[in-house]
Amino acid sequence: MRTGEIDDWLAGRARAHRFRVERRPLGALDGWSFADDTGNLVHHTGRFFSVEGLTATLGEGAVRSWQQPVIRQPEVGILGILAKEFDGVLHFLLQAKMEPGNRNLLQLSPTVQATRSNYSTVHGGSKVKYLEYFAGAGRARVHTDVLQSEHGSWFYRKANRNMLVEVDSSTEIPLDDDFCWLTLGQLGELLHRDNLVNMDARTVIACFPQPRPATVALLTDAELRSWFTVERSRHDVDIRPIPLDEVEGWQRGENTVERADGRYFRVVGVRVEAGSREVSAWDQPLFEPVGTGVTAFLYRRLGGVPHLLVNAKVEAGFLDTLELAPTVQANPGNWRHLPAEDRPPFLDLALNPPSDRVRYAATHSEEGGRFLNAESRYLFIETDESQTPLQPPPGYQWATPGQLGALTAHGHYVNVQARTLLSCVNTGAVQL
Amino acid sequence: MRTGEIDDWLAGRARAHRFRVERRPLGALDGWSFADDTGNLVHHTGRFFSVEGLTATLGEGAVRSWQQPVIRQPEVGILGILAKEFDGVLHFLLQAKMEPGNRNLLQLSPTVQATRSNYSTVHGGSKVKYLEYFAGAGRARVHTDVLQSEHGSWFYRKANRNMLVEVDSSTEIPLDDDFCWLTLGQLGELLHRDNLVNMDARTVIACFPQPRPATVALLTDAELRSWFTVERSRHDVDIRPIPLDEVEGWQRGENTVERADGRYFRVVGVRVEAGSREVSAWDQPLFEPVGTGVTAFLYRRLGGVPHLLVNAKVEAGFLDTLELAPTVQANPGNWRHLPAEDRPPFLDLALNPPSDRVRYAATHSEEGGRFLNAESRYLFIETDESQTPLQPPPGYQWATPGQLGALTAHGHYVNVQARTLLSCVNTGAVQL
Repeated sequence: MRTGEIDDWLAGRARAHRFRVERRPLGALDGWSFADDTGNLVHHTGRFFSVEGLTATLGEGAVRSWQQPVIRQPEVGILGILAKEFDGVLHFLLQAKMEPGNRNLLQLSPTVQATRSNYSTVHGGSKVKYLEYFAGAGRARVHTDVLQSEHGSWFYRKANRNMLVEVDSSTEIPLDDDFCWLTLGQLGELLHRDNLVNMDARTVIACFPQPRPATVALLTDAELRSWFTVERSRHDVDIRPIPLDEVEGWQRGENTVERADGRYFRVVGVRVEAGSREVSAWDQPLFEPVGTGVTAFLYRRLGGVPHLLVNAKVEAGFLDTLELAPTVQANPGNWRHLPAEDRPPFLDLALNPPSDRVRYAATHSEEGGRFLNAESRYLFIETDESQTPLQPPPGYQWATPGQLGALTAHGHYVNVQARTLLSCVNTGAVQL
Repeated sequence: MRTGEIDDWLAGRARAHRFRVERRPLGALDGWSFADDTGNLVHHTGRFFSVEGLTATLGEGAVRSWQQPVIRQPEVGILGILAKEFDGVLHFLLQAKMEPGNRNLLQLSPTVQATRSNYSTVHGGSKVKYLEYFAGAGRARVHTDVLQSEHGSWFYRKANRNMLVEVDSSTEIPLDDDFCWLTLGQLGELLHRDNLVNMDARTVIACFPQPRPATVALLTDAELRSWFTVERSRHDVDIRPIPLDEVEGWQRGENTVERADGRYFRVVGVRVEAGSREVSAWDQPLFEPVGTGVTAFLYRRLGGVPHLLVNAKVEAGFLDTLELAPTVQANPGNWRHLPAEDRPPFLDLALNPPSDRVRYAATHSEEGGRFLNAESRYLFIETDESQTPLQPPPGYQWATPGQLGALTAHGHYVNVQARTLLSCVNTGAVQL
């Protein structure tokens, strides 16, 4: 498919499927209820996911102690992209997929995007297409298969398998209506568009194995890992699940669970009617963040080699304390009530960058199956010593995209927001 | 120091220090008590470690549900070896260190073996020697610095930094009486001796970066990591800390916490009087396993290349479900009451190997600061298709020592028992 034809194809897919999302009070969600003993919001089957509580105490930072609702989804799902060469050029099979939380509903997702409930058909729905290339043995060559974390502010220790598999160019792959083959360059072009390549596709693309350029990094790989080890070791964190009923500062109303001050996010409910999903109608809760986020890598050329300023960021839902995040990852509205010195470093620069230094900017949605209108402005901004010193503040360090990319072969190093930005590097959407 | 002189030197160090360990009832330990609300065994400062409870439910296996005491030690310590070239040969600085749980008390430990309580001198004791090469910046080149797990059956999510750092050959390092410089080859010779190289030294040696031989492995690195990801994803485990008081099947007596059937281990108390430690006398609990363990890699040459049969093993205390363990890792006495088909695969072979197939055998102690007389027979046993098929049972896979070694650059892949055996490979103690 030529890039110019994609819009028409997507519009066609949108017309082909009935898909309607409307808000519904949490208390009226079909199949969901607040458990008597904990107040946790759970599905009557005990499957899918639940909304529970979490209490966090950190040893440092502007906000050192808080409680919040969090999504628990212990099942590990598969996010997988199938690849195949056509005329010597590698193509990737993407799916036009509707998700209730996306403002524009339809986005490009991986070939397979399935929770275990999906593919073991707890839904009672239809079978997941192309799953046999990921779950079966030997049908495709595995390039990547790694457990990666998702949003640590909203999920409690969630991880999914990020997979890239390739079939031989002689293998016949029947093409379903909702699927299309795209090159890496096309994915790079599409990543310039707002809300088109979904989070699940972006994180898998970030994990594509990359040839490692023979460049010299400021820190050796061993030094970078050592810095990471020190960061992970030095934080005193105490994070525990608690019943949703015991979360302080949040109120359960008829329609939502939210804070009196309106900050951070709301837990809301929706009713979904769909023609292209495994089942045709369902209710579910979603987390609806307040405001749009900003997620930016500030970068510099050091010795001619691009280096990203990474932040070893504690997020309460991480399995292991912290992961490497972009330089700035914040929802500005959540910080406005705090004095300037307590706000995240570099936030102002990411919100008001000199326009001639912005090398990439696009708005992307986070996981539309769990989050409603969760959008963030993703940026690469070139900086200099006056803005981002060679000796960065504590918790920050310089790493090349190649170093970060190599770490994505393993889980729990690079967080999901940094992976979205890495997907822009891997596809050539940004040239640093 | 020549290898032949080491015994005399160790004997001298043993004479130089008064070090006496005697059993003391748990209820009479100075500074320790059972907390009123939980029954947890805690130090009055809240530091060091505590003995708490754990409840585990697994989705498969012979024993699917149990409760047990477990050691919680959230502080991350440093296990670090300092290296330096003498006459072009790399030497490693080892320490003759007494630990209360070692049957022979004195063993060779890393240059630095310190909890954060140690080196922040909560003990009120003296300062940790050579710490400045590990905790300070820039005094030594970092070769390895990685958070590795320890015994998942006895610790709840414990990890320590495993570090190898090297100073320039021109750097003057004053040699303390309790320390000596040894080559890798000497460490290999000493690893043939029982209870001489302690666990902390072994795990650090296992993490020494190794040149990767250009051999062909049965599985590519990507395939091996994918198999590991599948194993880690497929297990349903529910593991939670509980108060020690609520642990079923265990009894708190005057002297110990133990099971009525005597299995697994006992929690016991000791009084330690020492001249060479940070403080001169203290009381503490220790875990005392019942019986001696057996820990063995069965291996084969496949295409001329040695391959170890690794086991993706769930241990209740692991941060992330499972890690790669030796083929056999068991305490035979704990399995005797179960029917043969429920015992660990390959256990009989590891207990009764053909003597002409045993390529390495020695008894080593586990961490003597937490475990009393915790010894295991460590083995490498060469096998063939009739014993260890190319298509191994579920949960088992073939990996080269080089593949396992590369994974030790990252945490939570290779468990501490497998790392002891890897240290034998890295030092040449075993030739596969």
